[in-house]
Amino acid sequence: MISSETSQHLKHAGTATLTTQLFKRGLHNVFIQGIRRMSATRENMVGEAFTLRYIPAREDLDLISVFENPEHPQRKAIETVPPGQVLVMDCRRETRAASAGDILLTRLKVRGAAGIVTDGCLRDSDAIAVMEFPVYAAGGSAPLNLVCHHAVDINMPIACGGVAVFPGDVLVGDGEGVVVIPKHLVDEVARDAHEQEMLEEFVIGEIAAGRPLPGTYPPNADTLVRYREWRQRRDEK
Amino acid sequence: MISSETSQHLKHAGTATLTTQLFKRGLHNVFIQGIRRMSATRENMVGEAFTLRYIPAREDLDLISVFENPEHPQRKAIETVPPGQVLVMDCRRETRAASAGDILLTRLKVRGAAGIVTDGCLRDSDAIAVMEFPVYAAGGSAPLNLVCHHAVDINMPIACGGVAVFPGDVLVGDGEGVVVIPKHLVDEVARDAHEQEMLEEFVIGEIAAGRPLPGTYPPNADTLVRYREWRQRRDEK
Amino acid sequence: MISSETSQHLKHAGTATLTTQLFKRGLHNVFIQGIRRMSATRENMVGEAFTLRYIPAREDLDLISVFENPEHPQRKAIETVPPGQVLVMDCRRETRAASAGDILLTRLKVRGAAGIVTDGCLRDSDAIAVMEFPVYAAGGSAPLNLVCHHAVDINMPIACGGVAVFPGDVLVGDGEGVVVIPKHLVDEVARDAHEQEMLEEFVIGEIAAGRPLPGTYPPNADTLVRYREWRQRRDEK
Amino acid sequence: MISSETSQHLKHAGTATLTTQLFKRGLHNVFIQGIRRMSATRENMVGEAFTLRYIPAREDLDLISVFENPEHPQRKAIETVPPGQVLVMDCRRETRAASAGDILLTRLKVRGAAGIVTDGCLRDSDAIAVMEFPVYAAGGSAPLNLVCHHAVDINMPIACGGVAVFPGDVLVGDGEGVVVIPKHLVDEVARDAHEQEMLEEFVIGEIAAGRPLPGTYPPNADTLVRYREWRQRRDEK
Amino acid sequence: MISSETSQHLKHAGTATLTTQLFKRGLHNVFIQGIRRMSATRENMVGEAFTLRYIPAREDLDLISVFENPEHPQRKAIETVPPGQVLVMDCRRETRAASAGDILLTRLKVRGAAGIVTDGCLRDSDAIAVMEFPVYAAGGSAPLNLVCHHAVDINMPIACGGVAVFPGDVLVGDGEGVVVIPKHLVDEVARDAHEQEMLEEFVIGEIAAGRPLPGTYPPNADTLVRYREWRQRRDEK
Amino acid sequence: MISSETSQHLKHAGTATLTTQLFKRGLHNVFIQGIRRMSATRENMVGEAFTLRYIPAREDLDLISVFENPEHPQRKAIETVPPGQVLVMDCRRETRAASAGDILLTRLKVRGAAGIVTDGCLRDSDAIAVMEFPVYAAGGSAPLNLVCHHAVDINMPIACGGVAVFPGDVLVGDGEGVVVIPKHLVDEVARDAHEQEMLEEFVIGEIAAGRPLPGTYPPNADTLVRYREWRQRRDEK
Repeated sequence: MISSETSQHLKHAGTATLTTQLFKRGLHNVFIQGIRRMSATRENMVGEAFTLRYIPAREDLDLISVFENPEHPQRKAIETVPPGQVLVMDCRRETRAASAGDILLTRLKVRGAAGIVTDGCLRDSDAIAVMEFPVYAAGGSAPLNLVCHHAVDINMPIACGGVAVFPGDVLVGDGEGVVVIPKHLVDEVARDAHEQEMLEEFVIGEIAAGRPLPGTYPPNADTLVRYREWRQRRDEK
Repeated sequence: MISSETSQHLKHAGTATLTTQLFKRGLHNVFIQGIRRMSATRENMVGEAFTLRYIPAREDLDLISVFENPEHPQRKAIETVPPGQVLVMDCRRETRAASAGDILLTRLKVRGAAGIVTDGCLRDSDAIAVMEFPVYAAGGSAPLNLVCHHAVDINMPIACGGVAVFPGDVLVGDGEGVVVIPKHLVDEVARDAHEQEMLEEFVIGEIAAGRPLPGTYPPNADTLVRYREWRQRRDEK
Repeated sequence: MISSETSQHLKHAGTATLTTQLFKRGLHNVFIQGIRRMSATRENMVGEAFTLRYIPAREDLDLISVFENPEHPQRKAIETVPPGQVLVMDCRRETRAASAGDILLTRLKVRGAAGIVTDGCLRDSDAIAVMEFPVYAAGGSAPLNLVCHHAVDINMPIACGGVAVFPGDVLVGDGEGVVVIPKHLVDEVARDAHEQEMLEEFVIGEIAAGRPLPGTYPPNADTLVRYREWRQRRDEK
Repeated sequence: MISSETSQHLKHAGTATLTTQLFKRGLHNVFIQGIRRMSATRENMVGEAFTLRYIPAREDLDLISVFENPEHPQRKAIETVPPGQVLVMDCRRETRAASAGDILLTRLKVRGAAGIVTDGCLRDSDAIAVMEFPVYAAGGSAPLNLVCHHAVDINMPIACGGVAVFPGDVLVGDGEGVVVIPKHLVDEVARDAHEQEMLEEFVIGEIAAGRPLPGTYPPNADTLVRYREWRQRRDEK
Repeated sequence: MISSETSQHLKHAGTATLTTQLFKRGLHNVFIQGIRRMSATRENMVGEAFTLRYIPAREDLDLISVFENPEHPQRKAIETVPPGQVLVMDCRRETRAASAGDILLTRLKVRGAAGIVTDGCLRDSDAIAVMEFPVYAAGGSAPLNLVCHHAVDINMPIACGGVAVFPGDVLVGDGEGVVVIPKHLVDEVARDAHEQEMLEEFVIGEIAAGRPLPGTYPPNADTLVRYREWRQRRDEK
Repeated sequence: MISSETSQHLKHAGTATLTTQLFKRGLHNVFIQGIRRMSATRENMVGEAFTLRYIPAREDLDLISVFENPEHPQRKAIETVPPGQVLVMDCRRETRAASAGDILLTRLKVRGAAGIVTDGCLRDSDAIAVMEFPVYAAGGSAPLNLVCHHAVDINMPIACGGVAVFPGDVLVGDGEGVVVIPKHLVDEVARDAHEQEMLEEFVIGEIAAGRPLPGTYPPNADTLVRYREWRQRRDEK
């Protein structure tokens, strides 16, 4: 479970800030590549990863009748992802078919999931575009998942957009994309990201007011003094 | 000619639904890859394919003076596509140059074409973005077609975005992209797609209201009973 | 320096028109590939190129402490690009990390730069999306530049999106992308583009009113007579 | 276990023939893409799949010390693949690092494995090039697997070169590449492939002797009579 | 028909030399990309282009029974390419399946074709590797052409490896690849290539003997004097 | 200058071993991607980097007459690379044209260069294939460099195959490819690679003789005792 303080910080931290915090801890490959936000949500997505893995489809296995089985891993995943978690799908970055559509996404939302992330595509993108639910994918593609994808297992470590995702890792999504935070680092990363966001809010004001980069970004001692004063005034409001 | 009932159904069927109907008939590769809707139209594009084929340009053939010849295949295609048909271009998915621009698209629209689809790019995308005319392409690219493309023939079978397009095949486009329906299947696919759309409209309401996937999607006997009641009420309105 | 007449013409010429003018002069590869406008500006970007070159990062060199040095080439470039010029970055079309973010872009804007072009990505794309400053990039990507990029030198000839950019070349950007005009051609290209834009404004009106392509586009003698009359009426207003 | 008759047939069937037999059964996607034979073996590789799965590396997990643990999945896979089986690795077609090297391949060979297939790369390719052991990979690449790959589990269904591989599927490799035969089809595919190979051996002799394609390939009734005579003479030897 | 003198020159000219001659005439895009020589031939391939065009396969059309029809375009092409000509196939650079195999290639050879070029793959590459017949392809791939390719027409202008090929253009292949020479240029290009080859044979001897590049390559007046003497001595032998 | 001991070690170390040594020092991206050895040399290439940088060609600059100028950067580079150094070219991984050919390579060899590395292509690959000179490139391509490349400067830091190369870095090439060793690390990396090669020679003998991976690779205390005895016996010979 994500603590409420950490959750609060992550709700207001950009993925740019979070990747910088992870870079400082030696983690360079944490931003899911090749996806974008496809829905109307403008708030950050925050939640623990619950994973679904696809391998390539095989024509004799991936018949349309598979969906009659409630144990089919894709359907099972939608029905079992715990509230507050993010369903993350490994589609091998294959974009020629969908990995889910608006009916499944509606179910996910009703069940209280925190969002969905796939490095494949989604169908029904017109409907998804107006959903108030965090949805990240490589794009829209009409063909159903059976054309390319065989759902194989749930809640195993996966690859998504070139990044390792372990069940329980914390995913944060904003308008730029999705960052994967290893679970053991989430509290410290969230806290330091919060501090960095504060400082950058101050810095961007300074820069907009005409200060040069040297001494301001990164801040020298003088700037830090002014920052602390600004921070104090801000906290007092 | 597309029958008016079929046309009506296709005007209101999503490409997701249509690809599912084609999947059920053993056709997996029917969705044009790598393109998107670039204009302001929000209604479905429906029309038979009229094709134009490009091969790579050759510097001694593809001079700017070629357009003075009204028999130049690109210009000829624009002037001869029958009203109600879709001009489909094979650009070998090459995106480094345009395959047409706003003047040609305006002429197409005035002539009553149903739309344009190219797996290459288009120029003048700012003007295209506000056109009320169905336009699908890989994106915007300023350089004129002669940089990359030699227009070679009209109304031959072509490749477009990785899909076979035969003249007379029916193309349907929505916000997700464009599906190619072989002409001999168009009536049955349209009819079954209409039925599927009805059912899915009902199902998504059920799911939004909290029903679980098992038993609802795909529907079991109980759900189908409720569906038929809903359908009857809907038809009575 | 760009003359005021040339600047005026370029402010109102589309990149489609400009690439056609360069094609007529034998230059085929002048449109930067793989980028798009990411900010809120709707006016053309016009300015001379000031370049920054990155090579791949090396872990022992590209530590977060490098930014403390005001001579770091990325920071130096932001602080030294002359007002009215465009900062152009060579990122080897690598999109897995950012090449700058909103703080640096704010500084660029404050300093009076004409815009920024990178064939890599930028971070903070939500903030960039509302900036009134011309920004062109391959997309948004959160990880900081040090993950992939080592800033190496300033104002050398570079590659950007597959196009050669020499310092002092003139860049023009519209909603479609960015064209690179070799400096010795800029005045004649601007003048002829202005003439072409006038003619095409007239032609598109003719086509919208129902005239066929042959004789209108390209124009024959009759059309040119009507064009000159239209032009005269227009100039008299 | 593969029966000895089936094994015999597969040892002498080309992957071209086997993919045709699978095509006739509705399976189109059975040939592993993007790999080649890297060792000196000239005989077919035949064996059941034993799988190893990698996901992207994470810097804090994939330290060089991981190999000290004999339970590390890569090392465990090498030590536990049963004799006569093929180790198949899912490297997400990532070619920037190795997935094994000559020491591990030597161990595999000593342990009696039937071969190794990876859609990633291998290191020590000079040594591999002279090994008498079936080795298929995307190519040679020196960096150790930890740069890109985190070994995660053993004998799960995987993707390899765009094809689904289930543990127990039968892999056959020749100079062209590797075909994956679903286990329940292996006997009939092997038998029919054997028949097809016989026929094609006859046909190629006919074609080489000057017969035209029509009537010979595919064979008409006359050709089949001659084929049966040839087959009888051949069997009598 | 290619004149015997031109043919003689082309038999001994490298594709490097021929592309330089075409560059001097303003043709930059004449070398077929993404293919390699797959057979045992070490002599140049020279012949006029006879073309076959594929579009993407469609499951209901591309059944294995199509080959029973001698009018199937692929089979028809093999049976009708005139002796001395090169069969060139447009496979849209799709490499996931074959476009022909050793039986068809044997027939081509028996019929006296000058060679085969495809920007797709070929099957039976082990057998092809030892054929004394010029074969150029993107590589080996076992699946039969029907998986990806629908043969559609013969002797139309096509794209092959990113280059325009018109029927009758002259193709020359060596160990590096294949160049396409527009038919109206073939005699002058062959003649000048012959001269260039002579000069470069001399130059490489000079360079190997220690002369520096300046003055030798390109040759200055002195070098040209020595070249003419060398040429005379050579011709006298 | 590379010390003679270091040079000796590098002459006999594989790139696999060297990348492992660099990995241990935190350097993950040191192996040039997408190239292969194209010549007949079987010994390691060892030398310091001397660099040449290309940007995309521009038709008005890159005329065939440029080579008449001995100051043309490509020609200048060939004539000035010091003996024992490796000419490394940045071609932006563009493979549609050559970056040099056999005449220039012959000159390089005569001048005593240690080898050539390019992430573009080379022409005259048949001649190169039999040269006793270390040549690494992305492959063979006939078109001359002016089609794609504008040579721009010498001995600046460059990108080559996705790796940063600074003048003076040490390049080592074997049959697998080329590793780039930052100059300040070369002595310690060479020394430790030598030690690692010794140990692996011993280990592979042990594995070939039937020892299991655990305890042998990586070696435990027992194995290390045996290794030291083996090493002593070996050194005594």
